[in-house]
Amino acid sequence: MKLPKFEPDEAVLSGESADIYFAHTIDILRHEALNPVATLEVFPSRAGILCGMEEVKALLARVLPEGNREVWALNEGEAIDSKEVVLRITAPYQSYGLYETAIDGILAHCSGWATAARQCVEAAKGIPIISFGVRHVHPSVVAVMDYAAMIGGCAGCSSIAGARLAGVRPSGTMPHTLIIIIGDTVKATLAFDKYMPPEVPRISLVDTFKDEAEESLQVAEALGEKLDSVRLDTPSERGGVTADLVKEVRARLDLAGFNKVQIFVSGGINPERINYFTETGAPVDGFGVGSYISGAKPIDFTADLHEVEGKPIAKRGRTPGITPNPRLKRIM
Amino acid sequence: MKLPKFEPDEAVLSGESADIYFAHTIDILRHEALNPVATLEVFPSRAGILCGMEEVKALLARVLPEGNREVWALNEGEAIDSKEVVLRITAPYQSYGLYETAIDGILAHCSGWATAARQCVEAAKGIPIISFGVRHVHPSVVAVMDYAAMIGGCAGCSSIAGARLAGVRPSGTMPHTLIIIIGDTVKATLAFDKYMPPEVPRISLVDTFKDEAEESLQVAEALGEKLDSVRLDTPSERGGVTADLVKEVRARLDLAGFNKVQIFVSGGINPERINYFTETGAPVDGFGVGSYISGAKPIDFTADLHEVEGKPIAKRGRTPGITPNPRLKRIM
Amino acid sequence: MKLPKFEPDEAVLSGESADIYFAHTIDILRHEALNPVATLEVFPSRAGILCGMEEVKALLARVLPEGNREVWALNEGEAIDSKEVVLRITAPYQSYGLYETAIDGILAHCSGWATAARQCVEAAKGIPIISFGVRHVHPSVVAVMDYAAMIGGCAGCSSIAGARLAGVRPSGTMPHTLIIIIGDTVKATLAFDKYMPPEVPRISLVDTFKDEAEESLQVAEALGEKLDSVRLDTPSERGGVTADLVKEVRARLDLAGFNKVQIFVSGGINPERINYFTETGAPVDGFGVGSYISGAKPIDFTADLHEVEGKPIAKRGRTPGITPNPRLKRIM
Amino acid sequence: MKLPKFEPDEAVLSGESADIYFAHTIDILRHEALNPVATLEVFPSRAGILCGMEEVKALLARVLPEGNREVWALNEGEAIDSKEVVLRITAPYQSYGLYETAIDGILAHCSGWATAARQCVEAAKGIPIISFGVRHVHPSVVAVMDYAAMIGGCAGCSSIAGARLAGVRPSGTMPHTLIIIIGDTVKATLAFDKYMPPEVPRISLVDTFKDEAEESLQVAEALGEKLDSVRLDTPSERGGVTADLVKEVRARLDLAGFNKVQIFVSGGINPERINYFTETGAPVDGFGVGSYISGAKPIDFTADLHEVEGKPIAKRGRTPGITPNPRLKRIM
Amino acid sequence: MKLPKFEPDEAVLSGESADIYFAHTIDILRHEALNPVATLEVFPSRAGILCGMEEVKALLARVLPEGNREVWALNEGEAIDSKEVVLRITAPYQSYGLYETAIDGILAHCSGWATAARQCVEAAKGIPIISFGVRHVHPSVVAVMDYAAMIGGCAGCSSIAGARLAGVRPSGTMPHTLIIIIGDTVKATLAFDKYMPPEVPRISLVDTFKDEAEESLQVAEALGEKLDSVRLDTPSERGGVTADLVKEVRARLDLAGFNKVQIFVSGGINPERINYFTETGAPVDGFGVGSYISGAKPIDFTADLHEVEGKPIAKRGRTPGITPNPRLKRIM
Amino acid sequence: MKLPKFEPDEAVLSGESADIYFAHTIDILRHEALNPVATLEVFPSRAGILCGMEEVKALLARVLPEGNREVWALNEGEAIDSKEVVLRITAPYQSYGLYETAIDGILAHCSGWATAARQCVEAAKGIPIISFGVRHVHPSVVAVMDYAAMIGGCAGCSSIAGARLAGVRPSGTMPHTLIIIIGDTVKATLAFDKYMPPEVPRISLVDTFKDEAEESLQVAEALGEKLDSVRLDTPSERGGVTADLVKEVRARLDLAGFNKVQIFVSGGINPERINYFTETGAPVDGFGVGSYISGAKPIDFTADLHEVEGKPIAKRGRTPGITPNPRLKRIM
Repeated sequence: MKLPKFEPDEAVLSGESADIYFAHTIDILRHEALNPVATLEVFPSRAGILCGMEEVKALLARVLPEGNREVWALNEGEAIDSKEVVLRITAPYQSYGLYETAIDGILAHCSGWATAARQCVEAAKGIPIISFGVRHVHPSVVAVMDYAAMIGGCAGCSSIAGARLAGVRPSGTMPHTLIIIIGDTVKATLAFDKYMPPEVPRISLVDTFKDEAEESLQVAEALGEKLDSVRLDTPSERGGVTADLVKEVRARLDLAGFNKVQIFVSGGINPERINYFTETGAPVDGFGVGSYISGAKPIDFTADLHEVEGKPIAKRGRTPGITPNPRLKRIM
Repeated sequence: MKLPKFEPDEAVLSGESADIYFAHTIDILRHEALNPVATLEVFPSRAGILCGMEEVKALLARVLPEGNREVWALNEGEAIDSKEVVLRITAPYQSYGLYETAIDGILAHCSGWATAARQCVEAAKGIPIISFGVRHVHPSVVAVMDYAAMIGGCAGCSSIAGARLAGVRPSGTMPHTLIIIIGDTVKATLAFDKYMPPEVPRISLVDTFKDEAEESLQVAEALGEKLDSVRLDTPSERGGVTADLVKEVRARLDLAGFNKVQIFVSGGINPERINYFTETGAPVDGFGVGSYISGAKPIDFTADLHEVEGKPIAKRGRTPGITPNPRLKRIM
Repeated sequence: MKLPKFEPDEAVLSGESADIYFAHTIDILRHEALNPVATLEVFPSRAGILCGMEEVKALLARVLPEGNREVWALNEGEAIDSKEVVLRITAPYQSYGLYETAIDGILAHCSGWATAARQCVEAAKGIPIISFGVRHVHPSVVAVMDYAAMIGGCAGCSSIAGARLAGVRPSGTMPHTLIIIIGDTVKATLAFDKYMPPEVPRISLVDTFKDEAEESLQVAEALGEKLDSVRLDTPSERGGVTADLVKEVRARLDLAGFNKVQIFVSGGINPERINYFTETGAPVDGFGVGSYISGAKPIDFTADLHEVEGKPIAKRGRTPGITPNPRLKRIM
Repeated sequence: MKLPKFEPDEAVLSGESADIYFAHTIDILRHEALNPVATLEVFPSRAGILCGMEEVKALLARVLPEGNREVWALNEGEAIDSKEVVLRITAPYQSYGLYETAIDGILAHCSGWATAARQCVEAAKGIPIISFGVRHVHPSVVAVMDYAAMIGGCAGCSSIAGARLAGVRPSGTMPHTLIIIIGDTVKATLAFDKYMPPEVPRISLVDTFKDEAEESLQVAEALGEKLDSVRLDTPSERGGVTADLVKEVRARLDLAGFNKVQIFVSGGINPERINYFTETGAPVDGFGVGSYISGAKPIDFTADLHEVEGKPIAKRGRTPGITPNPRLKRIM
Repeated sequence: MKLPKFEPDEAVLSGESADIYFAHTIDILRHEALNPVATLEVFPSRAGILCGMEEVKALLARVLPEGNREVWALNEGEAIDSKEVVLRITAPYQSYGLYETAIDGILAHCSGWATAARQCVEAAKGIPIISFGVRHVHPSVVAVMDYAAMIGGCAGCSSIAGARLAGVRPSGTMPHTLIIIIGDTVKATLAFDKYMPPEVPRISLVDTFKDEAEESLQVAEALGEKLDSVRLDTPSERGGVTADLVKEVRARLDLAGFNKVQIFVSGGINPERINYFTETGAPVDGFGVGSYISGAKPIDFTADLHEVEGKPIAKRGRTPGITPNPRLKRIM
Repeated sequence: MKLPKFEPDEAVLSGESADIYFAHTIDILRHEALNPVATLEVFPSRAGILCGMEEVKALLARVLPEGNREVWALNEGEAIDSKEVVLRITAPYQSYGLYETAIDGILAHCSGWATAARQCVEAAKGIPIISFGVRHVHPSVVAVMDYAAMIGGCAGCSSIAGARLAGVRPSGTMPHTLIIIIGDTVKATLAFDKYMPPEVPRISLVDTFKDEAEESLQVAEALGEKLDSVRLDTPSERGGVTADLVKEVRARLDLAGFNKVQIFVSGGINPERINYFTETGAPVDGFGVGSYISGAKPIDFTADLHEVEGKPIAKRGRTPGITPNPRLKRIM
């Protein structure tokens, strides 16, 4: 996956999205004419997958003075340890002090999503995971959420904006609403096939009106070789998708000669559920994961000053001076 | 709190932030010339505090056809039950089908934050809660996060953007960085006092270089009557803030005659920790809450069609026809 | 319910079904010409519903010498406490010593079944329970098992032999095999209706080939007013019967005007599951309970001698002499 | 162990012990003149030891038409897996449909007993287990219960009927009642010795009136070399049999020169208790197991049609067509 | 109970039993000629029963200068709360600084024992408790341990030294060794009766050689009216004393006319076991408690300076100045 | 460590500290002129480190008749198993019967302390442990407690009496009281240094008035090379000593050039806390352990007669005759 080029947001640059006390701090230091070269180190509260660093870099490139800066960082997508320093900035403090909130926030939210995605990917042992959870986050972070899911290892994502940021084609099947408006799963699938360009895979959602096994056979018979997959999304009111259901649908499709039709499973999927399917040998060809990724708890990041004008210093609870981390690479 | 006026975002209106399959659906229905009046109902997966409805209303007011729409909803900030219908839209489907992702996402994220805030507020039994967690979310949602925290009952928030949206003055003390740059807590507090306008309360952070009790007395002596509060934020490396520490600082301040100086506590605060302080009788005057609110898991919302052209219908697992909810009010 | 008249079994009377050591004991005592009047007390190891006493009475009436016997007992169907004496026999020991195994065994097995049935009946708070579990016990105890379930409070039972013993008409719906042989649920239901006498209620099993809600509406439309109930028996492979499924089927039947069609639920039913349905307000009209009743663990009964020739005696661990129990009534 | 020859029971053959709905089904199919060759597969709900198959075979041999039947099965006593097909019948459905209840019931009850017996046998690692539990089941199943215990690996059983069915001599010691009637353990043991034929082993029950260690020495001194074993059956009111008690009795017997007298333990024995004795090195020479075996929960068996007239079919939740199981052998 | 008069121990007065650093401290202060009047407060780490204060008072009366001391304290035997000040000394520091170790240690050990005794006494709801645990502590603390048990509410104690300190007659039955040396429980009991003065109650230990119930009856018959009690002390190897055993011994004694013989229970007794006997209605007339009391964990006490020369002061973690406790009484 | 020479205590020799029933027993046996040679075996109820045997030996050497005694024992400090015989006495019973209480009590209390000490020593994997807990036990056992801690493996102890018994110099730092009286940690440390002889290591307690890291640097700068260690003893009210605090103090000392100053940790230390420090890599140079050792539960010891006049005998629950233990050595 090729990394995109981020543009700093105006609300960030203006300090609008910052904690008020950083604005106060810059104000006071200006009055006092204090602008020492200071070293800030940023580290996470728990292990995970680093994400958001590209966006942070774009911000730093814009605000740090070119001749008087030194920035060391880990790469987007790297595994990180609890309390490991992932970013070290040395520059005049007034140039970046206002952005501590944004730097922490970008890394926290994006690393949280990427880490949850990675947990699903690892549980799935090679079965592709598609990020399906944009409906559970505010539209303002749809793009970065799906981008982070891709950094975490997802094979695709459902939002148009997220797919564009990640440089891929968005993935999607069909919603229940289409089938309900048309009033019949087979007719809806045929309409989908009729109007969609050929590069969009034909994936039919088969739990809207009838038993999943029955609808699977009906759409397979209606579309023939063109049918790529069926998607099982049985609601919890009907007991959710079970491993036995996947096996039975597979067996009934095979019995009717549709060995090539794949089975895609969604609805409450998380690493535990993925393990359940893989450990019971259910022949799943793809998982759609929603709120496990999009609702993942951010990974808190903390930023601490460790040197001021070259002299080691730190608040109580921290060790003064540079914290060694041989994995860091100089990026600026 | 007066509710703000939201403006629909361009990325939402364009469908950019939607799941691709909704874009496909609208496309297919246009080809088929199908645009029935359909009724969509939206409900949460668990109980909580409703938030985001104002932003959703602004979106619907913009996209639904004025002469052919009927919208019923609950109010911003109301307590909602698991599976209770909070929004019912009846309008031509093509006018709103593309926005299901955004409607669900706004409600999910904002209600998640507001609900977590309410839990803290209830635990605190009258002691004010300030939202301090913007550093744990992406800057793009800083404003709505702090707004949702205020809807949930917080007495203030730290971000400039969030405070503006909520129509309040931002709350903040001083960061460790200010004290470290200046090199001394008392000097930093005096500088803060010198340059800040009088309406900004003087709250000194007293755990940077020395024992909290010692620094509390020093800043109290330096600022005298002007000192509003001290903030205890002891890091976990030093055992965090304990109830006994709060009591001791209170006792030492009182012994020295500083009965009016308040004590503000932050660092890993959540309802359980708030209960710990209140149940042990620690004299806390305010709590700063970070990731418990800002990192709250969104409350998943689901949108289902229940009528098409006036006829009851529903997918398997749902009951066809309008779901009665006498609490809903017609808003459009 | 009128109690049936039991006939002692030949294998019991002959001592064939006894533990060998009781046969040895009688043999030795005869050689020694020892036949004292002895008092045997029988008590259970845990609380429950007493069942089997009628069959035990029939045995004792046959073997105890009429002029030299005194028997006190509790009634069939009474609630009993742990370690409460439920039967006290005073008679020449040789007349009954061989039957200790049978007396204990009849009470143990029957009381186990009746107790499990009562637990279901109590959980169901008035919703009728039908005993459906004969397929999980050996055919030789089918009749007594279903009889015990009726003593425990069931409203009906499925075996012909059990129903005869309990003096009721057997209850039953239709098996999956009938539907599979006929090949269609609606056709099978129509055939059932065509050939069954009018007093047999029309209960259609609606989960064989299609979604339960869909089949429910189809059989309701096919049979009209004659349809008594639908039976939901969703297999665990499909998540089992959920409370939401019952609610939805009820709602869809009502929407189509079939308010009188009842819903009968089976499949893994036990008190916990019954509680789940009643606590979530699922409109169930009857439960079929299988192995929870028929596979219930017997309640161990113990028989101890407490007097020999009028003198108190007992083994270690027991108290010599008659154990008082004012609830006992003299029956012989 | 040589397998016995079973005779089908009249109540089974007449359908008396069947679920009523199977009688209805046969009735309807006769009216409709439907009698297709159908394939029924039977499988258990959990793993265990298969028992009851000999009795099932005897039934099938009697009812299936000789020229039009094919039956595959596993052997009596084999270990079986959860959901493994243990019996497959292909024949005209009317010939066997009525017996589904009996087939399932025989296998369920007998396999439950055999499986519990096997668990004890495996825990005992070579120490013989005697089935002592007929007093906890209805006399009608005494014989099959003890037979199943022997199939599960017991070295003997206490019922006369069960031992006959299993082709062994019944095992037994002496009951407390014998000792209480005679009034003295030593005298009772001498009477036992006087009248019992030489092939019955002299096993004295030593906990009736005195301390177990004391009575053990007394009976050993009274009987001398003729004493085979002592049985410890300490009631729970006295703390039950402990490993230390067994060791002490062993040591005291040895000290007095009775090294050949064996120690047999009974009273609440189950695999956990057996493990306790073997892991603490208690020198037990035999265990008597009661309700752990005789009160074992039946293993539910399910019978499903998988082909009708050679065409794969199945109810929802099952896979149509023959389920492969290479371990099955054709028996008819 | 009348409180005894304690004499300070020489090893305490000399500082021999103190922590070396207190000796160093006094040494340094003398060199520096520092001997301020200082206030020391002593408090426990958990709630319990205060014991040892009489011994501490004796020490303070000896070392504090009469004209310049003020001591406030709670009374021996009072219930105390966690962190409640139980002793406050105001005097020249050099006069008492060396004794902080001894003061804390006396209170810690004695309060630990008294608190454990009180827990047994409260569980026993009026049934007398005898302290039987001196065999589990070093002989040097036998007297204070049994004294503390009496302060905690015991009705008696077994050590000669402890009983003397508490001003009571020592309690005791007979040891197993007496019975083993004499070789017979009845003979040992008769010998005991023969030689012991009449004021020593005749309590026979009845589990040495025979079953407890049997030996109880034998000693009752041998001693007749002179027998006060039997003591049940069944070893864990025989399952320990059970509630059923107590009931049975009671019933058998009553049946034989020995209603006045009491039953005394010992062996692993603690509050949980006492609850077990009382909740199951076992007719116990007295409990002997051993290591639950004598092996009780000491209650840690802490001593802190709170004023020096009348000025409030305290180490970090404590509040400077006198800690108010209205329950304290001035004792010096 | 060279073992000390113990002197039997007068209260023990006189029988004053014994259970009264042993005094009665000796009295009765004298009247009966019974003084058989008897063998007493002593064993613990759980595994641990044997301590107290030297003191027991001194007692036995004084009371057993020289020409008629045989004593076998394990050595002071050896690891012992649950129920392993650690002492076997064969001698005329009257010579030692009175001392059973003292023998059990010495071994119980001392082995309890030594075992707890050993657990700390093993957890610390080479980091020295100092016994600091005399303030939690009665002064009468201060010396034996600290002696037992040394037998368990401690590197030092704080009491003067215990150190003398163990033949070492007492270990200690400085108490909070010294610092509070002098009013300043640095001044107190300088006074300590001024008056203490050179062989006493300079260990400064650095948590009394200021932050631990700050005071550590101040005392290091004041004493320079003479400072041996700092002691961290942060109270629980301030969160206790954390691993991070140790690391930070180490780092700040090193940064300031004080690499040789060691860090000593105390306050609630037990094996679990020691593991926490070692597993997180905190650079601790010594631990002070208080109530975990001094408040350790005694290990109950039991003494049983196993032979009288050469004949095997035992109470119920024990095996008559000598219990073999090849590890025992003859000591008398």
